[in-house]
Amino acid sequence: MAKSPETEHPLKAVGWATKDTSGVFSPFKFSRRATGEHDVQFKVLYCGVCHSDLHMAKNEWGFTQYPLVPGHEIVGEVTEVGSKVEKFKVGDKVGVGCMVGSCRECDQCTNDLENYCSKMILTYSAVYVDGTITYGGYSNLMVADEHFVVLWPENFPLDIGAPLLCAGITTYSPLRYFGLDKPGMSIGVVGLGGLGHVAVKFAKAFGTKVTVISTSINKKEEAIEKLGADSFLVSRDPEEMKAATGTLDGIIDTVSAHHPILPLISLLKPHGKMVLVGAPEKPLELPAFPLISSRKLLAGSGIGGMKETQEMIDFAAKHNILPDVEIIPIDYINTAMDRLVKSDVKYRFVIDIAKSLKLE
Amino acid sequence: MAKSPETEHPLKAVGWATKDTSGVFSPFKFSRRATGEHDVQFKVLYCGVCHSDLHMAKNEWGFTQYPLVPGHEIVGEVTEVGSKVEKFKVGDKVGVGCMVGSCRECDQCTNDLENYCSKMILTYSAVYVDGTITYGGYSNLMVADEHFVVLWPENFPLDIGAPLLCAGITTYSPLRYFGLDKPGMSIGVVGLGGLGHVAVKFAKAFGTKVTVISTSINKKEEAIEKLGADSFLVSRDPEEMKAATGTLDGIIDTVSAHHPILPLISLLKPHGKMVLVGAPEKPLELPAFPLISSRKLLAGSGIGGMKETQEMIDFAAKHNILPDVEIIPIDYINTAMDRLVKSDVKYRFVIDIAKSLKLE
Repeated sequence: MAKSPETEHPLKAVGWATKDTSGVFSPFKFSRRATGEHDVQFKVLYCGVCHSDLHMAKNEWGFTQYPLVPGHEIVGEVTEVGSKVEKFKVGDKVGVGCMVGSCRECDQCTNDLENYCSKMILTYSAVYVDGTITYGGYSNLMVADEHFVVLWPENFPLDIGAPLLCAGITTYSPLRYFGLDKPGMSIGVVGLGGLGHVAVKFAKAFGTKVTVISTSINKKEEAIEKLGADSFLVSRDPEEMKAATGTLDGIIDTVSAHHPILPLISLLKPHGKMVLVGAPEKPLELPAFPLISSRKLLAGSGIGGMKETQEMIDFAAKHNILPDVEIIPIDYINTAMDRLVKSDVKYRFVIDIAKSLKLE
Repeated sequence: MAKSPETEHPLKAVGWATKDTSGVFSPFKFSRRATGEHDVQFKVLYCGVCHSDLHMAKNEWGFTQYPLVPGHEIVGEVTEVGSKVEKFKVGDKVGVGCMVGSCRECDQCTNDLENYCSKMILTYSAVYVDGTITYGGYSNLMVADEHFVVLWPENFPLDIGAPLLCAGITTYSPLRYFGLDKPGMSIGVVGLGGLGHVAVKFAKAFGTKVTVISTSINKKEEAIEKLGADSFLVSRDPEEMKAATGTLDGIIDTVSAHHPILPLISLLKPHGKMVLVGAPEKPLELPAFPLISSRKLLAGSGIGGMKETQEMIDFAAKHNILPDVEIIPIDYINTAMDRLVKSDVKYRFVIDIAKSLKLE
């Protein structure tokens, strides 16, 4: 019989978990593996609350393993390193994002694209190489292979910066890979939430002209005045959308609710690129003709490899790119999730784990 | 009142036209403009029969202007050149493809992408700069701006080669633009018709490994033995399709009938690219998740610019890439169209205009 989460490993750990599809969180005792040769052990200081955590808490994607300790925007301070660890030492500030393992041998892994490895191991609710379930950052302690740990830049805020480990790399990577990072380009960002607001900041840092596309005019002032977007389009206003036809070199679409794709494709110039980073459940409906007549493309992108994640965080530190967050204590998490359902957060909750998580 | 097609221009021309949505062709007298300063006048020798000709003859795309003289795979011999023509002289063998004009000033035009110019003028059933309707190559005589004329390579067959002017560039261009032309890559070609069989030949010439994907096993022997494809997949065989999951770097989809896209996307490796060159009327249905989880892309591509069309025809001549055609007289065109509806041709009809078109 499998051991209980509390006793299967030698290191005692505490966190908050959901035990069923209600998605309600409560304190949870479990355990972490001993620090292996290539492992970094660290004390969790902050952890961002990603919309995925909410989907997973309620098993909306169908592969949640309960009890679930979510959290994949994890920053902390190294407390122990394995004998063969090369990149980290005790006291370093570090981060762990969406993944903690991959095969390390396939074409993806050997090309620094571990995120696309078919054996990639998610930071929580996945099966690790030792057969145990992975638990995320809503907890006091992490142990992770150093390959999946990033070094946090000096003097870069840990609390505000934490969401970059998912929201940051998810938007940075496609802007880079699809060449949407050239100064002077016109880039659209669809949806102004956790991902979207960071996409605006990276796109601006790359020197592009940014248009935020949202269903609601309410976000216009904030998008332009606070986030620095150059213009704003209300996607439900056909006149406004029509006037912007053929003006964008690329679009990062962060919306995971079902929404029409064709009006967005119409905003692209010929050879324009639209990249989905949010995954609507229902299939997209897309006529082929607009793609063919203007050689447009529709693509998807999911987080980024470890090398690129380190590059992203270093770039963010250099250009002072930080998400807008609301810091919360762990015992606020159920309320936070309720607010997240209503998109009532600007733009990311970050849990102050060190200050608020009770160890007993 | 507008002049009749027969009298609006000084040069008498004859061709075969459809006069209504019946799509039935019959002899038609019209006229061509006098050879302008930048124009090339040529005697049409051969003209390919593209599936578009059939759609247009029956006004299936809704923008046909009757009477319609189709044909955009046109080759012939120069009989007169305008005073400012630089690239051609009387006696040259030349070709005209899908377009005869564009604005020549926009970003697309100045980057040799006239095919994506919003003012691109189609070879037939479009309005030319002088306000008259364009007529295609099912006729004895063409007059075209030299910019939209390609020089036919010496000793390259005119009859068999004609379809390259549409089917050739339509498949060559996306293989190049999307980087699907690297030796050793695995490329899928969906549909083995006029476009598909040429795509196989170009992909092989680039040194890639080609898989033909078709609804019917009947084409397997021909695809492999005759066209040189490396393997064959029956798209309606779920087992075969599953076994080929994640094996292709790119796919050129030439099918314009409605067909499921997801099984094709599944054939792609991570970062794989699927390019549509046939345009199904109904919107595609595509879940976002497979794109995101493997950074795949779906794109469209339409013909190619004039510079690339010349490059394509030179490449074809150098590598002896020729479509498989059935040469027909012009008075066979109605039967040919009936057979085209049933895909009963391997793989392109080419009309022997010079030999079969009566001038009176």
